[in-house]
Amino acid sequence: MKFLIEGEEEIGSPNLGKFCEDHKEMLKADIILVSDTSMIARDIPSITTGLRGLAYWEVAVTGPDRDLHSGLYGGAVANPLNELCKLIARMTDDHNRITIPGFYDDVAEVSDTERIQLAENPFDEVKYKEAIQVVQLQGEEGYSTNERTGIRPTFDVCGLWGGYTGSGSKTILPSRAYAKISCRLVPNQNHEKISLLFKNYFESIAPKSVSVAVTVHHGGQGYLFPIDHPAYLAAEKAYLKVFGKIPVPVRSGGSIPIIATFEKVLGIKTILMGFGLSSDAIHSPNENFYLENFFNGIKSVIQFYHYYSQEA
Amino acid sequence: MKFLIEGEEEIGSPNLGKFCEDHKEMLKADIILVSDTSMIARDIPSITTGLRGLAYWEVAVTGPDRDLHSGLYGGAVANPLNELCKLIARMTDDHNRITIPGFYDDVAEVSDTERIQLAENPFDEVKYKEAIQVVQLQGEEGYSTNERTGIRPTFDVCGLWGGYTGSGSKTILPSRAYAKISCRLVPNQNHEKISLLFKNYFESIAPKSVSVAVTVHHGGQGYLFPIDHPAYLAAEKAYLKVFGKIPVPVRSGGSIPIIATFEKVLGIKTILMGFGLSSDAIHSPNENFYLENFFNGIKSVIQFYHYYSQEA
Repeated sequence: MKFLIEGEEEIGSPNLGKFCEDHKEMLKADIILVSDTSMIARDIPSITTGLRGLAYWEVAVTGPDRDLHSGLYGGAVANPLNELCKLIARMTDDHNRITIPGFYDDVAEVSDTERIQLAENPFDEVKYKEAIQVVQLQGEEGYSTNERTGIRPTFDVCGLWGGYTGSGSKTILPSRAYAKISCRLVPNQNHEKISLLFKNYFESIAPKSVSVAVTVHHGGQGYLFPIDHPAYLAAEKAYLKVFGKIPVPVRSGGSIPIIATFEKVLGIKTILMGFGLSSDAIHSPNENFYLENFFNGIKSVIQFYHYYSQEA
Repeated sequence: MKFLIEGEEEIGSPNLGKFCEDHKEMLKADIILVSDTSMIARDIPSITTGLRGLAYWEVAVTGPDRDLHSGLYGGAVANPLNELCKLIARMTDDHNRITIPGFYDDVAEVSDTERIQLAENPFDEVKYKEAIQVVQLQGEEGYSTNERTGIRPTFDVCGLWGGYTGSGSKTILPSRAYAKISCRLVPNQNHEKISLLFKNYFESIAPKSVSVAVTVHHGGQGYLFPIDHPAYLAAEKAYLKVFGKIPVPVRSGGSIPIIATFEKVLGIKTILMGFGLSSDAIHSPNENFYLENFFNGIKSVIQFYHYYSQEA
């Protein structure tokens, strides 16, 4: 039994990949177990069989060399904030599809059979909307909410800033505008290729009146775990023993880039046995973890080791 | 001779209008002189005969009630920053015209004769671009740079913020996005009407997946000063005496909302004798004022009082 603990997952695990490269022998194993995923609900155990990949960029749009008086120059000099908004708006269309040329080329389309299975997972739209206080959901046309977060890529502005942001008003035409942008990717999409496609497209459609720079922050590949793998079967038995129910296989919208690295560098699959709930408010204020799941999680992992040693 | 000094011009003079209403008798005068404008160049004196009006708004776009994990929710929940960018992008078209319905209805079109006069003002595009370090100018199709800043309205984002704006990356779908937006208006456009048109349009095209709120900050009307007015003729003589040249009448892109208020409330015209230069970098770092113009300005104003007392 080997334990591997790192604290850089949220910034893309910049050092763990090299650590794996450097210690392949020490890290040899039959299977890796990671607890960083969620269950569908308190009474519905589930095993995450797919993770999305990620590409994260920062863009800078520069106009004049200083903030200008918006009266004296406004209308004659391109405004970097206006232009950044226009560029971002052009990255998606009216059907909420991403317009970067080639973006969907490598997306592994999910079979109708699997889409039917996914549709069987319980989903309460009213509760889902209530939990985050929105009146209407929005996403790519032709896909359900679970499909939009599970099997489809995304384009999200994570942060944007520029110009005067204090209280009251200041009539300036700003010199610079910035945005942090990330795309969740699906299995078979290569984050380095996607970053290149984005950078080329973003820079090519920018007007000459401003200069545009795209910096790639970090990225990670998506991941798939087959449900006929011995580790999956062992995990299934473990959940059944502790929760009294056969777990449901689900695709998660999140990314754990190191999982794909483990497979690529060490050649080892990772079984994802996580015990979070959607009410945990992860990455949000009042993040929490339900104690019952904490203890049932410990029990399930113990059972997994037991059954996996029999399967393997 | 009466002196009126206020320190709130940059935030829209919120109290001076009421002060005028309350002290009409005390403020009675034949003419008002304000020094808050520029000259074309050190050796080309000019008198500003037109000012643009202004409307200034703050918009807030709200999605979920907290920042969400962009992996778990991304693709299924509308992102307020994406939506704000799309809304702002829709406010102007590919010809850099403003798309708010009715926006141009009251714009006083300038006669071909006056456009020809305006075109005679010296303008060096290379120097203009060099001074602010941009490689290409951009503005409404069919108008020159001086027309774009002098006789045409604008739509500028003065500030925008939302989501994660620190260093590095954070993969969130933000809860809220904000922007400060201002339009420079031209004579005959009413800033209150324009604010209503903007608010209605902005709110009407927002998707139901987010909520949108528009707050009106402040505004001001545009202004026109006739070049055959006795005060204009007196100012012309004053500049000729001090600078040795007849001043050129120009339209300024800036706004001095109180000038329109003086006319409306007190019934007094304002002659704009300003001595700034475009190299003063006003509203920017290293703002400065050329000493020669400071002293020539004092002399010109003294001459103005002399000639105006003869004209009037």
